[in-house]
Amino acid sequence: MDESFVTLEFRENALYLIDQRVLPATYTYYTCKTYEDVEFAIRDMVVRGAPAIGATAAYGVYLAAVQYAKQEDFSTELKKACDLLSKSRPTAVNLAWAISRMWKTFLKVEKEPTDMILSTLKAEADEIRAEDIRTNKQMGKIGNQVVPQGATILTHCNTGALATAGWGTALGVIKEAFYAGKDIFVYADETRPRFQGARLTAWELTEAKIPSALIPDSAAATLIRDGKIDLVILGGDRVAANGDVANKLGTFALSVICKEYGVPFYSVVPLSTIDFDLADGSLIPIEERDKKEVIFVGDTQVAPLDMQVFNPAFDVTPHQNITGIITEKGIIRPPYKENIERLKKGETL
Amino acid sequence: MDESFVTLEFRENALYLIDQRVLPATYTYYTCKTYEDVEFAIRDMVVRGAPAIGATAAYGVYLAAVQYAKQEDFSTELKKACDLLSKSRPTAVNLAWAISRMWKTFLKVEKEPTDMILSTLKAEADEIRAEDIRTNKQMGKIGNQVVPQGATILTHCNTGALATAGWGTALGVIKEAFYAGKDIFVYADETRPRFQGARLTAWELTEAKIPSALIPDSAAATLIRDGKIDLVILGGDRVAANGDVANKLGTFALSVICKEYGVPFYSVVPLSTIDFDLADGSLIPIEERDKKEVIFVGDTQVAPLDMQVFNPAFDVTPHQNITGIITEKGIIRPPYKENIERLKKGETL
Repeated sequence: MDESFVTLEFRENALYLIDQRVLPATYTYYTCKTYEDVEFAIRDMVVRGAPAIGATAAYGVYLAAVQYAKQEDFSTELKKACDLLSKSRPTAVNLAWAISRMWKTFLKVEKEPTDMILSTLKAEADEIRAEDIRTNKQMGKIGNQVVPQGATILTHCNTGALATAGWGTALGVIKEAFYAGKDIFVYADETRPRFQGARLTAWELTEAKIPSALIPDSAAATLIRDGKIDLVILGGDRVAANGDVANKLGTFALSVICKEYGVPFYSVVPLSTIDFDLADGSLIPIEERDKKEVIFVGDTQVAPLDMQVFNPAFDVTPHQNITGIITEKGIIRPPYKENIERLKKGETL
Repeated sequence: MDESFVTLEFRENALYLIDQRVLPATYTYYTCKTYEDVEFAIRDMVVRGAPAIGATAAYGVYLAAVQYAKQEDFSTELKKACDLLSKSRPTAVNLAWAISRMWKTFLKVEKEPTDMILSTLKAEADEIRAEDIRTNKQMGKIGNQVVPQGATILTHCNTGALATAGWGTALGVIKEAFYAGKDIFVYADETRPRFQGARLTAWELTEAKIPSALIPDSAAATLIRDGKIDLVILGGDRVAANGDVANKLGTFALSVICKEYGVPFYSVVPLSTIDFDLADGSLIPIEERDKKEVIFVGDTQVAPLDMQVFNPAFDVTPHQNITGIITEKGIIRPPYKENIERLKKGETL
């Protein structure tokens, strides 16, 4: 029940990332030997998915520390590297969360010998990665409770082992349901413009032999209306304190259709994705990406080169459209603001 | 104000079709010398768009007549050719409408000399093509009445000169508004999986210099919610007697979002697209197309080859979600069933 691949792995002084830009046609690893390599890998989406980005950035901070440890201005340079890494993708909060955690760890051991600083930072990055996998397995077990026997599930984008340090968030719930013996069927949205559903989720589903079909994003609405979807399970890139969820472009439209036709709609996120300090989704910065992502698919030109393009990477789903937010601490249900406040205080749901 | 290109043109014993499979990267014409060529061109989507398919099929019937005119079993073979052409695409009603009109014309002159039969059929096909352009110009003028000065308009798929014998249906309305001096802006959905919006509409918009931007289909919902779209104008492939509209995949989802956020939603169709004999949209056959359309874009593989795919070409928008259906005889508004019944009887709206 483990993956046949690792999403990210640190060994021999380098971070190895499965290159998600070229899957499924090509299966290869991208090597990051410096934090600049890591920054590029996140920005260019060699690695993507909020939890995977977080763990990757943690190793980026460690690589920066290795690079600057012997310099007089170690602390200043490390801070600069953290800032650079933070800006590689603007929407996912896990990125800032992981970098902040690494920085706080650094501050605790700053006065120690260099070896001690580096080994502490390496251990912290390893722990962020390991924690993510543990968290995902826990979310899988909790999320499986809402999956009926024989359910047909719709998912969007990629939220599997590839989107995380391993196992997955929303796709982790789906895998848990499948391995628990529930006779499920999965529809995967292809997820334009970068085809994470087609390239990555379809690949993970076929690797895991889960009965499934790929659909153009626009085909989901009819399936939902016609009663062919029992529930929607997808991820989240940043959750505001009122339960609004920023997630891959296309999530919001699905939520409106689900609400109209009474289909349960779940977002699966670790607590590290919740931005407790952000009042609501309107405050989440939405990354706009290059027009080339829309005009070209591989080498194929699908639109005039001089056409203006609007290409937001994410959209915001209002909490009113969400049935529940599945976390490693339980399922957050309405009223979201109150229940997220309780989680922030460390109370149980 | 006329196009710099012709969508379809009959000259020198052949039908020339602009090859819509390779636009915008390549601008070339596909030649049909037999009705089998025409059948392939419709099936493989060299030509697409309900009105364009209708006019193309009419010339297909004429080419079949040329081919079989000297045979004993002319009538039988021509009927077979008509049947074959009818099956090239199942959803658009204009196809059946145009073929039926050609067949009825044949029956009227069946006993006449061959030359007379052929010239009559050629004239009828020419008239179907010319009528379509006149109808589109008329719909443009009528539709322009619902376009406010300074409007931002969202459209889906391609409904321009390329989708018709010339000028366009929904895009014809948009062009009329633009040439009438209204300061409009157009968002064009790229329209997966075949990218008619990206490849064809974006091309027509840039050719006509209409201010516009291309978006992934999933970006429309946020624009609609955020008040950035004043109205949606798109086409229709078959309209049922109760006003339900079958149109390119993605139309239905847009209609739900528009209804939720109070944005006017118009379908523009000639009367030949209305199937007066079909009670409602659930009876419209929805064509499912090859999985290759989803797995490949050009030569680029975007999903595992062995992945199952659900690829419906169209979806059905219930009349409850439609603000108005713009035709050459006026704008049909609710109650649709009653008003379409009046049109059927030849009454004015």
